[in-house]
Amino acid sequence: MKYYFESEKSLDMSEVNRIIERAFAEHGSGRARMPSKLYVTFPHWDFRTMPAYLPALSIAGVKIVTVHPENRALNLPSVMALTLIIDPATGHPLALLNATGLTDMRTGAAGAVAAKYLCPKKEIVLGLIGTGRQAENQLEALAEEFSLRDVRIWSRDEPLAEAFVKKYPQYEISICNPKKTCDCDVLVTTTPSRTPIIKNKWIHDGTHINAIGADAPGKQELDPTLLVRGRVFVDDTGQAVHSGEINVPVAKGIFSPDMIAGTLGDAVLGRIKRDTDEGVTIFDSTGLAIQDLAIASLALKYGKSSEIPFYA
Amino acid sequence: MKYYFESEKSLDMSEVNRIIERAFAEHGSGRARMPSKLYVTFPHWDFRTMPAYLPALSIAGVKIVTVHPENRALNLPSVMALTLIIDPATGHPLALLNATGLTDMRTGAAGAVAAKYLCPKKEIVLGLIGTGRQAENQLEALAEEFSLRDVRIWSRDEPLAEAFVKKYPQYEISICNPKKTCDCDVLVTTTPSRTPIIKNKWIHDGTHINAIGADAPGKQELDPTLLVRGRVFVDDTGQAVHSGEINVPVAKGIFSPDMIAGTLGDAVLGRIKRDTDEGVTIFDSTGLAIQDLAIASLALKYGKSSEIPFYA
Repeated sequence: MKYYFESEKSLDMSEVNRIIERAFAEHGSGRARMPSKLYVTFPHWDFRTMPAYLPALSIAGVKIVTVHPENRALNLPSVMALTLIIDPATGHPLALLNATGLTDMRTGAAGAVAAKYLCPKKEIVLGLIGTGRQAENQLEALAEEFSLRDVRIWSRDEPLAEAFVKKYPQYEISICNPKKTCDCDVLVTTTPSRTPIIKNKWIHDGTHINAIGADAPGKQELDPTLLVRGRVFVDDTGQAVHSGEINVPVAKGIFSPDMIAGTLGDAVLGRIKRDTDEGVTIFDSTGLAIQDLAIASLALKYGKSSEIPFYA
Repeated sequence: MKYYFESEKSLDMSEVNRIIERAFAEHGSGRARMPSKLYVTFPHWDFRTMPAYLPALSIAGVKIVTVHPENRALNLPSVMALTLIIDPATGHPLALLNATGLTDMRTGAAGAVAAKYLCPKKEIVLGLIGTGRQAENQLEALAEEFSLRDVRIWSRDEPLAEAFVKKYPQYEISICNPKKTCDCDVLVTTTPSRTPIIKNKWIHDGTHINAIGADAPGKQELDPTLLVRGRVFVDDTGQAVHSGEINVPVAKGIFSPDMIAGTLGDAVLGRIKRDTDEGVTIFDSTGLAIQDLAIASLALKYGKSSEIPFYA
């Protein structure tokens, strides 16, 4: 069995976007096998196990990811992940990947793929609510698909926003208030909020939103009236209802699963299109095990590994 | 992160029985956290992911196990498993264990614990239907709890039965037909059968049965009338209905979940007892993630490990 460490550093973001796009096409076609992820919850954190099989890439495995928002105080990452890859022919463990960086990248890539299909423009003003690690990955993945005319960012943590600006001198980035940040073509929300931050009236017609932050029951970032107003695309319906941006509005009866416009797989396959600047589209991202397998297939191709003795 | 290889060789079967007994007590008390295991199925095999948290032992993690009956033809084990241990305080990955041997042992231990509480005798005639690796583990675990007066075995594969006899010269073992094998105090079935092997009329009152083989939808080893006649104990109700010995009879409407006498946790906690030789008891074992965590806690204590760099 091989162990891959820091394999995200060997990957090209544009190639990651393409393989994630392919994974969503497989999901849309119904060929991928993926039960909804399982949560084990603790008072202040949880860990999730995400098994799947992606026949198109001949890859099977499980990602295990822990999400502990209070870890920063201990100088530990709030997200830590490992992916185990299993031979789809024999079940033999093939590889273990340190998947923390890969998780960040594949989530960024899903946002880029969603915007590629749901934002009709090619040159955009980008708004980022939250400026942590996932905001960086969204920016980097979107920059492969769009020309970024202007980037507006807001963070509750002002020094974090300033560090973000410094990290990307190649872009026009301005620190704004939330309302001004929302005045954009593609808005990305990446906060761990449990109360809506984004007001419906701040969002003009023509906007596409990547709602990334909500990935567990109780989390939400958008005013629910925005979900009712817009067309909501999910990565996976079961997971979105359980733990995505729509989970709280569904639990409260404000939004119902039959109001979902489609999956990102539907959009990638061209079953549902957005050709005009009318209305608002929202991509509700929870993160799929097949994204983890798809990016793992690149890590196995380009990453460095060492040997772990699985059998003597 | 530490990697534990062949840690089952450092373990004492009697100590394993006790920690598995403790895990079932925790399960019975409702303190363990364990969603039902997830299956990803292929045409001829499946893999299962089994996350849990066992507060009494301060251990959390996930076992991933692949079950591929046709692997023997490729000289690969039919069962291969790894367990990832996560720090229950921070979510940080602590250890990875090669868990193939540990899986065998913890399943054997569950059988021994079930028989300890559900067979009123201390000196027994043991019957084994199937003589593969799990039969060995059942024998070794039961031998810690009972005095074995006589052991009767049957296998479809005669040379396998002969090798079994040779492996345990310390016991009186005779190769019998299935009917004669069933004439015993504790019967253990460990085959991958999808049609019942054990006839109701072969089982006399007073017998306790460990039904181990059925661990996936469609598998069954016992005549369903035996389930209706006996008192059925399960390791976990949800898992047993989905994939245990009762799964096919439940799907066919021959057995219903409300006919379950109790869980092994109930028996260990003394809530439900068997004091007399009347009737038949059946333990339907599917295998619980908390068993994997419990035995992992011993492996972490006694096993040898090497270091895997999880973070630079």
